[in-house]
Order: sequence, then C-alpha cells, then structure tokens
Amino acid sequence: MTQVGVKVGIIMGSQSDWPTMKEAADMLDALGVAHEVRIVSAHRTPDRLWTYGKTAVERGLQVIIAGAGGAAHLPGMMASKTRVPVIGVPVQTRALSGVDSLYSILQMPRGFPVATMAIGAAGAANAGLMAAGILALQDPALADRLDQWRADLSASIPEEPDRNAVS
Amino acid sequence: MTQVGVKVGIIMGSQSDWPTMKEAADMLDALGVAHEVRIVSAHRTPDRLWTYGKTAVERGLQVIIAGAGGAAHLPGMMASKTRVPVIGVPVQTRALSGVDSLYSILQMPRGFPVATMAIGAAGAANAGLMAAGILALQDPALADRLDQWRADLSASIPEEPDRNAVS
Amino acid sequence: MTQVGVKVGIIMGSQSDWPTMKEAADMLDALGVAHEVRIVSAHRTPDRLWTYGKTAVERGLQVIIAGAGGAAHLPGMMASKTRVPVIGVPVQTRALSGVDSLYSILQMPRGFPVATMAIGAAGAANAGLMAAGILALQDPALADRLDQWRADLSASIPEEPDRNAVS
Amino acid sequence: MTQVGVKVGIIMGSQSDWPTMKEAADMLDALGVAHEVRIVSAHRTPDRLWTYGKTAVERGLQVIIAGAGGAAHLPGMMASKTRVPVIGVPVQTRALSGVDSLYSILQMPRGFPVATMAIGAAGAANAGLMAAGILALQDPALADRLDQWRADLSASIPEEPDRNAVS
Amino acid sequence: MTQVGVKVGIIMGSQSDWPTMKEAADMLDALGVAHEVRIVSAHRTPDRLWTYGKTAVERGLQVIIAGAGGAAHLPGMMASKTRVPVIGVPVQTRALSGVDSLYSILQMPRGFPVATMAIGAAGAANAGLMAAGILALQDPALADRLDQWRADLSASIPEEPDRNAVS
Amino acid sequence: MTQVGVKVGIIMGSQSDWPTMKEAADMLDALGVAHEVRIVSAHRTPDRLWTYGKTAVERGLQVIIAGAGGAAHLPGMMASKTRVPVIGVPVQTRALSGVDSLYSILQMPRGFPVATMAIGAAGAANAGLMAAGILALQDPALADRLDQWRADLSASIPEEPDRNAVS
Amino acid sequence: MTQVGVKVGIIMGSQSDWPTMKEAADMLDALGVAHEVRIVSAHRTPDRLWTYGKTAVERGLQVIIAGAGGAAHLPGMMASKTRVPVIGVPVQTRALSGVDSLYSILQMPRGFPVATMAIGAAGAANAGLMAAGILALQDPALADRLDQWRADLSASIPEEPDRNAVS
Amino acid sequence: MTQVGVKVGIIMGSQSDWPTMKEAADMLDALGVAHEVRIVSAHRTPDRLWTYGKTAVERGLQVIIAGAGGAAHLPGMMASKTRVPVIGVPVQTRALSGVDSLYSILQMPRGFPVATMAIGAAGAANAGLMAAGILALQDPALADRLDQWRADLSASIPEEPDRNAVS
Repeated sequence: MTQVGVKVGIIMGSQSDWPTMKEAADMLDALGVAHEVRIVSAHRTPDRLWTYGKTAVERGLQVIIAGAGGAAHLPGMMASKTRVPVIGVPVQTRALSGVDSLYSILQMPRGFPVATMAIGAAGAANAGLMAAGILALQDPALADRLDQWRADLSASIPEEPDRNAVS
Repeated sequence: MTQVGVKVGIIMGSQSDWPTMKEAADMLDALGVAHEVRIVSAHRTPDRLWTYGKTAVERGLQVIIAGAGGAAHLPGMMASKTRVPVIGVPVQTRALSGVDSLYSILQMPRGFPVATMAIGAAGAANAGLMAAGILALQDPALADRLDQWRADLSASIPEEPDRNAVS
Repeated sequence: MTQVGVKVGIIMGSQSDWPTMKEAADMLDALGVAHEVRIVSAHRTPDRLWTYGKTAVERGLQVIIAGAGGAAHLPGMMASKTRVPVIGVPVQTRALSGVDSLYSILQMPRGFPVATMAIGAAGAANAGLMAAGILALQDPALADRLDQWRADLSASIPEEPDRNAVS
Repeated sequence: MTQVGVKVGIIMGSQSDWPTMKEAADMLDALGVAHEVRIVSAHRTPDRLWTYGKTAVERGLQVIIAGAGGAAHLPGMMASKTRVPVIGVPVQTRALSGVDSLYSILQMPRGFPVATMAIGAAGAANAGLMAAGILALQDPALADRLDQWRADLSASIPEEPDRNAVS
Repeated sequence: MTQVGVKVGIIMGSQSDWPTMKEAADMLDALGVAHEVRIVSAHRTPDRLWTYGKTAVERGLQVIIAGAGGAAHLPGMMASKTRVPVIGVPVQTRALSGVDSLYSILQMPRGFPVATMAIGAAGAANAGLMAAGILALQDPALADRLDQWRADLSASIPEEPDRNAVS
Repeated sequence: MTQVGVKVGIIMGSQSDWPTMKEAADMLDALGVAHEVRIVSAHRTPDRLWTYGKTAVERGLQVIIAGAGGAAHLPGMMASKTRVPVIGVPVQTRALSGVDSLYSILQMPRGFPVATMAIGAAGAANAGLMAAGILALQDPALADRLDQWRADLSASIPEEPDRNAVS
Repeated sequence: MTQVGVKVGIIMGSQSDWPTMKEAADMLDALGVAHEVRIVSAHRTPDRLWTYGKTAVERGLQVIIAGAGGAAHLPGMMASKTRVPVIGVPVQTRALSGVDSLYSILQMPRGFPVATMAIGAAGAANAGLMAAGILALQDPALADRLDQWRADLSASIPEEPDRNAVS
Repeated sequence: MTQVGVKVGIIMGSQSDWPTMKEAADMLDALGVAHEVRIVSAHRTPDRLWTYGKTAVERGLQVIIAGAGGAAHLPGMMASKTRVPVIGVPVQTRALSGVDSLYSILQMPRGFPVATMAIGAAGAANAGLMAAGILALQDPALADRLDQWRADLSASIPEEPDRNAVS
C-alpha cells in the first residue's frame, strides 16, 4: 500500500545498500518530501520490480530513486518498465569501487534514461535533492524549502579552514 | 529572449559538442517539446553561464540539458547557480574517450546533483527523454506522447536479427 | 515456436549485436548444434525477456547465449528468470570499448551466475564452444565432434610464422 | 584418487585462494553436489595441471571450477587441456583489485572458453551455482534443489530494509 | 582583506581538503613565502569564487593554488576568471582515488590552463614549490632559498637504506 | 646558442612529438613570446638534458615546456636539474592513449613539481598560455596581450551553435 | 632442429602476433644475434610449449622472447617450464588495447618472473635489445656492437625538430 | 666501493621503497648471489644516478634491479646510462596502486628496455630470481641452486588447501 501523498519511491537491491541509500531518505526528510523505502531486487525479486514499475504511474509516484551495486540492473530495468523518472545511485563495491555499478547504471541505451548520481553516499544524498528539484517544479513551497536549503549550505562555508580540526 | 513556452534549455560548451547534443534537440522535437539551444561555455563565457543560471527560474525553464567534454564544468556549475534540474551529457573525447567528461560531470559533491547520462550521442538522446519524462509529470498530453514513443520503440524490435543487414 | 531439438538459444539486445553474435551461431553450426536466434531486449522488450526466461526449461533449452552492449542487462536478467545456464557475451562499445558491457554482465550478485566470455567476436565464438562443451556432457557424438574441432585447431598451427603474410 | 560420484573439481592456484574458493565448495555442499578440492598451480605444478586436465574426462569430471589471482593462467590452461567446461573465478588482488586476474581469465582466444565469474567471493559462490546448473541438465533432483534454493533466496528478501541493522 | 605582501592564495573547496592542502601552506612557510588560505567552493560559494578571481590581479596575487576533489571545478573555474597562474591539486577521493579529481582539473580546454600536480599530499607540497619557483623568477633571495631547499633535499639522501627502519 | 631575449624553452623527446608541441610554439608566437625549440631526449640524449637543465638559469630561461610520450621522463628529469618552472605536456600514445605519458609526468615526488597540462594538442597550447601567464607577472605589455587574447576568445563564442556546420 | 649457435628463441602465440614480433627479430638481426622464430601457442599447442620449455637449457637457448595478446599465458607458462630468462611482449589488442595482455604477462606470482616490455612494437624491439644486453654479458664483441648501436641512436637525434616533416 | 664479486646492484628511489625491495635482496641472499643495495634517486640525486650508470660496466655489475614508485624514472634513466640489463620493480602507491609506477617503468621507448616485474613485493622477489637466472647463464653452480629453488617451490605445494588455515 502506498501512503497518501507519497511521491518518491526509494528502492534498493539489498539490505546492504541501506547505509548508502539512507542518505537519500534523510535528505528527503530534511526537505519535507514524503517517500517510501523498499527493497526491490532486479535479480532476486524480478516480479516485485515488474509490479513496482507497472504500477508506478497509477500509484502517483513522480520520482523513483534506485540504488544498486555491481551488475546494477535495478535502475535501468525500472526505467524500462515506467516513464516515471528514475534516478540511479551506484553503490560502492569492494573490488571495483563502484565503477561496475556506475557503468551498469549509466550506459543505458537510447530510449531508457537513468539520471545517474555520483558513486556512494554523496550520490544518494544528491538523488534526494534531484528528486526534490523535480517535485519543486510543481510545488512552490518545496521550491522555497529547497532554495533555503541551498542558501543555508552556502552560508555555512567559513572563509578559512579550521586548521585545528581533526580530519 | 526566451520564446514563449520554452521549458527546456539545451546548452553546450562549444560548437564541437553540437553533433552530440543535436540528438537531444531531435528527441525533444520528436516529442513535441519546445526548447532553446545555446552555447554557454563555463570557461570562455562564465558570465553567460552566471546569467543563464540566475534567470532560469524566472524565465520558466524547467529542465536544463548541459553537454560538455573534457574538464566538463558546465553541468555542475549550472547546477550550482539554479535549482532547475540539470541533466548532464558527457561528450566523448579523443584521448580519454569521455571518461574525463563523465567524472567531471558525475562526481558532484553533496548539494548539487547533475543527472548524468551515458557518454555520447545515446546519452544526449536520453537527456531529451529524461527532460520529457520530467515535464510529463505536469503535462498529460506529453505523458501520452512519451508512452506512445516508448510503445513504438518496443514494437519496432523484430523477433530475429536480419542476417543480411550491412553492419 | 521452438524447433524440435533446439537446445541452445542465442539472444541479443539489438540488431547491432548481430555481427558479433553471428560468431556464436557459426560456431554452433560448425559443431552441428541446433539453435535458435532471437532479439530479446531487456529494456525495449522486457516482457519478451520474461516469457523467454520463464519458458526456457519447458521448451527444452539447455543453454542460453546472451549478448549485449553498454548497460548490458540482458544476460543477468535472463539468469534471474531461469536456471538454464546463461553464457554472456560483452559486445564492444564505442566510448568504453566494452568494459561497460563486461562489468554489467560479469559482476552478478551471489545467486545468479552468468558465464562471461571475452569482449567481442572471440567471446561470441567461445560462447558457442562453451555451449557445445556443456551439451557434450550428455551427447557423446557431440563430444567427439568437439574433440575433433579442438584437435584440428591445434593441428592447424604452423611451426613458424609466415613472414610474408599480409597482416 | 577421485571419490565415486565426484563430478565437480574445484582447483585453485594456492592456499591463499582458499578463503575465496571456499564459497564455491560451500555452495556445492548446500546443493548436495559431490566435489573434490585441489591445489593445482599453473606455474608451480604445471605437470599436476597437465595430468588433471588430461584425465578429467576419464575420471568423470563434468565441471571444473578454477580460481586464481594475478597472472591467473590456471583456468585458461585447464581449458586448453580438456573439453570439460571450465568456470573461472578471478581472485581479488592487492594492487590491481583482481582486474589482473579478471583479464587473465576472461580474455581467452577463440577456441578455449572460460566461463568467467565476478571477482572474489560472490564469483566463487556463483561458480558453484553455475556448476550445479550445468549438472542439473541431467539430474532432475538437483534441478529441483536448485529451483528451491533460488525460490528460497527470493523469498528471503524483506519488503523494506532494516533501518537499525548494523552495517 | 589581503595582507600586505601576500602573493600566493591557497584556496580549497571544503574543510575536508585542508589535511591535503596544509602541505602547500607548510611548504610556503618553509620557503618564507607569504600566503593566504581560503575556502572557496565552486558550487557552494560561486560568488566568492567570482570575486576572488576578478580581484586577484588588483590584489597583487601572483599565484593561486587551488585544491579540490571529485568533480573538482574550482581550479578550472578560477583559471577562467583570472590570468594569474593557477596550480591545481587533485585531492584523493574515496571511490575513485582522485582520478575523478585529476581529470576534472587536468583536462582543461584550450584557453584555460591549470598547472596540475600529483594526486594528494605530495601534489600539494609540490604546488607550494611550484609557486615558489614562479615567484623566484623575480625574487633572487627566494631563488636562493629554493636552491638551498633543493640542495638540502638532495644532501639528505643516504647512500643505503636503513634496513631496520620501521616502515 | 640562446637567442637574445629567449625566455621560454620548448623541448620534446622526439620528432614525433612535434605535431603536438607545435601548438605550444604557435601559441607563444601568437602572444609575442620569444622561445626556442629543441629536441632533448631523456633516454637518447641524457647529457643534452643535463646540460640544458644545468644552464637554464644562467641562460635566462624562465619557463621550460617539456613534452613527451610513454614513459615520459623528460619533464620530471628536467625539473630535477633546474629550479626554472617546468610545464609538462603528455603526448597521446597508441596503446594507452597518453595515460602512460600523463602518469609519468604528473606523479612526481615531493620536491620536483611539474605543471602538468591536458593530454595532447590542447595541453600543448595551454602550456604556451601558462608560460605566458607566468612571464606576464613581470611584463605588463604581455599581460595586456594575454588579457586581450582571453577577451577575444570569449567574444568569439556565438550564442547558438551553427546547426549546419560540418563536424 | 635448433640451428647451431642459436641462443635466442622468439616465440609467439599466433600468426597475428608476427607484425609485432618481427620487430624483435629485426633488432636481433641488426645486432648480429642468431635466433629462431616459432609459433608456440599456450592453448592450442600446449605440448609444443612443454617441449620447448623442457628442452630450452639443453638446446643452449639463453633467452626466450615470448609475445602474446589477450589472456597471454605463453610467457608465464614458459617461465614455469624453464629457468632460461623469459622476456614477455604484450601484443596490443582490439578491445582492451593490450592492457589485458600486459596484466596477463606482468603479474606473475613469486617464483616465475617474466621480463615484461612495453605494449606493442616498441616493446618487441626492446625485447631484442634486452636479449642482446643479456648475451653481451658473455660476448664482448656483441657488447661493442650494442654500445655502438646505442651511440648511433643518440647521435641520430637532431638539435631541433624538422618543422616541415610530414607527421 | 664495490665489494669484490658484486654482480647485482639493487637500487631504489627512497627509503620508503625498502620494504618492497628487501624482497629482492632476500631472494638473492637465498640463492647465494652477492649484491649491493643503494639509494639512488632519479630526481633528488641525479648525479649519483649518472655515476652509477656510467661506472656499472667497469665495476663489473651484470644486472641492476631498480625499484621506484609514482613517476618512477629511476629504472628507465638507468637503462639510458648503461647497457647492463636493468630490471624494474613498480612500487605500489597510495592513490594509483602502482599503476603510475608501472606505466613509468614499462612504457620505455625503442632503444632502452627495462625488464618490468609485477607491482609490489612479488615483483621485487621475482626481480631477484630474474637476476639469478641471467647470472646462471654463466654460472653452473648458481644454475643448479636456481633449479633446486624452483624444484623446492614446486614440491612445497600440497595436494589440497588447508581448510583450517587462518587466512
């Protein structure tokens, strides 16, 4: 069941992606954007992927954020099943540092774009911001909150580095 | 001057990016999405970049597609100047095949997402589709056209390869 | 409809993969292994992929050879839909030389192996040989033909290079 | 001496590969597939490799899983010595993260396929599954166990991530 | 406010770059070169970047050392805003080890050179030396100090390694 | 013999580097900066390298631009022999596209910076600009010419791409 | 049959390696070093490899130059079969530019060194020079010829590039 | 002063290379090959490099093992100064894992071969073995010791992995 008003779905291939994808959820929370979080594995639960994609429009989802690692097929397969914009987050991997995840998500053929973010946690946080930016096109209050978030970020930067900070 | 109704801006760093970025324009044409095309160089015309970004919201732009190659700073700098969603297209380069473009566009820090597409022409075409998908959230007629485009694409795939086609 | 006796399915993501995948078909022809050739696109015809995978066992397929390029999801998604062994062929790509195809095919998560071959035409030919090797476990005549093919290959190697050959 | 009924040989280049290759053995144990485990070093015990390959068919081996790291010649050399299907597992290495192992195993010339798995432990586990999938073509009981293993894996995926799990 | 006599500006994208960029400051201190240290983020404080670049000549800056990581746009954007020579330091990153930083800094288009240093701390120290070498062209006393520093470095190398040193 | 007033030395490892390094010479010509052009091979003429480096200061050279490909030792060895700032240009290579040249030039140890430019012709042109920028610190007329060159470059960028240009 | 006095064996995996390996033969010819040239394929003629390695010492070979591409097992397997020094030449490949050949040759485990040369034709020529350098340790006349060859190479370098040469 | 009978020189760029290069010294000790160990930095002590190279033949050195990291110019510059065979060891580095060291050592131009070993400690040990293999061409007792070392290595490999070993 979708909660009323949920416009963003955060999906990921496995539990092990949560520490990365949590950043997307936290960013949406910070910006006051309702969202749901689900595990949808392209390989282990392909039917779940199918259903999620096929019902995305009717359920009112407006953005899907999909994170996965390795042969990361989830974002691209979701993009194949729905016209709802899909944002992909390449999860960092052990042997190949997430370059495998990146190529699997990014290099989609003509017809099925995935809006790919940076590898890892910063990419997941940015996926939340990108989702908010898309929703803000129709939601002036969210646009204001996003503007404020950006202004706060800029205002938080000191003139000089703290030379005594523990790195 | 923005044309009335222009919701998508396609910008690129130089004339040499046009053969790639033309694919984005063609896709938007095919989907009936009004757009403008501009050269905005992050390094050679930084003030143009500044102005473009600063006025994007007031001019009614809803998506900016930015293509660039090498140390491709245009998409990310644009994302720094406006909350309008920015889609980045890494243009293929000579020595590094566009991996330089890709990393320069993709690896944005927390706060400034760029929706990165595949390297080269397929990525540019997909940028047009992604822009259409975002606009379709508010435009049922465009959503229908996009659904039709996707259905046509699927329907065009034959059961078997043509064994005599000239590759 | 499957032809009677077809035990190997060669599938590929698009017409453009045919010049590569033809090598697999030719190898199977050379070894006298009946096969079918189909275009099955993970993104453009996902339902075709679903059906192909779901019916593979009942149709009597014993090996599936799947070639794809870029974000090459076909082999791995097929492995998710059937326990029939899947052999993956990374098709060479323009910007990333097939490393994108390779990582998308190879780096499958625990549970869904894809038997990955070398990038490009040699990999496709070897996919045919690997399929024959698997079928030969149950087919002594094929095993003999395979042994002969290997012996012929070894016997064809001259002692010295031809110094006048046109390279 | 081969044990009666042993159809899978797991071989590896050195003791240091065992923590990776143990995953293949464990998977075969879980699926009830009898196997043997041997150290066969392409460089340090080439004669052992020769003998292993030359006797594989007569000993009744049906699949050989070969893991190695660095200049990983074991899987490919074994493929040169026997038509029994060889599955290769690239062991992760220190300086090059297993990309050296991968290229040495994957990029086999026309004539001698190696079914290459993902780098590291997941690849080794998948090697066990791939071996089982090949044997299942002739063993309906194993096919059922494999189907069940796959069904259990899919059933084990929760709807949502555990937000409190220790990563 | 610039301090009197400050000829080198060390700028960096964020506090997290300080442990790396400190090496540049320490080197300039060792060579007796007055400098200022500032945080200037290309994305979070683009106006600060604009002002810093636009006033660099009039403020008497003769070299700008700019360090950044990931999609490292700071050095190149600064080079676009001023003719004062810009030295770029690619900060090492988590997923891509600083290759992303490197390509973003190095691959500048014709017109806007950035003098790129090695990735990480050694590169930052060398940025200080490069700045000193440039200033030494007009400052014989600094040239002497630099010559001495180089002579001391060479003189410090023992004939043989210390076989008991703790590595 | 140095010509009177020559402040920039352009050196390269071999004749085959000239098509790349010509861009540096042309840029200096365009900016009115006197320079000399020499072949100095680190490996084939090490004594020439030694002499060039040892006499650079006394000969009045203020910048050395060094281009080389493959195991490109020339820029770094020159930096070891003189405190005159060395700008390095990685020449594109056949097998490794100039990444070998790049790493050999860039990754200098603490003590011996090389101001590394982009791979290939754009990097060589930028080497000329960087040299001019360094000399301009002491030469107001050159500073004016450089400012003008930069202004002309910016002014040359049209608002929109020429859609009919031959790419 | 070995020719009397043959001290260097040049071996390669296939006819297609000859255009590269010819450079080694030409260099040895230029230096007056007797050699034989053979095709020895690690995978297609493993027994030939075995015999070649096992008889190398008794046949009086003092250096073996082995070239191969892709999963290039020939140099390393030869090093496993004989203590005669093996020089490896990575042949450039289509998809991976010879990085696959390089890693397969270079990354040998402790115990079996292969003296790896640069990728491609320059590496093959250098293999000839390295072989000559090894033989020169026992052959003063060859040492003199090698010294002369090196002196001639250095003497052939002009002071300045030919600005009119056709690149 | 060279010790009487020293035929192998082990040189390295800095103290930090010793933990790697110690493996070469230990291997030579194990094989009873007299050697000297020196720090020779291409950049910090270029004159020491010059002298070492220029006197290598007259001092009776027969092999030089040179290890270095990053922009690793030592092996190649030594090869430029002497015809004594140079074996290069790429030391692993922090950001680029030794790929920078590898390319700087391996990609030597025609004329100056460096016998490149694997990255890191295994490569250093193999450098010792390669040096011994070269010297053994003239030293039957050493040849016997090397044969024995190789036989012992092969004999030390157990049939099966120890499943309880602590990895």
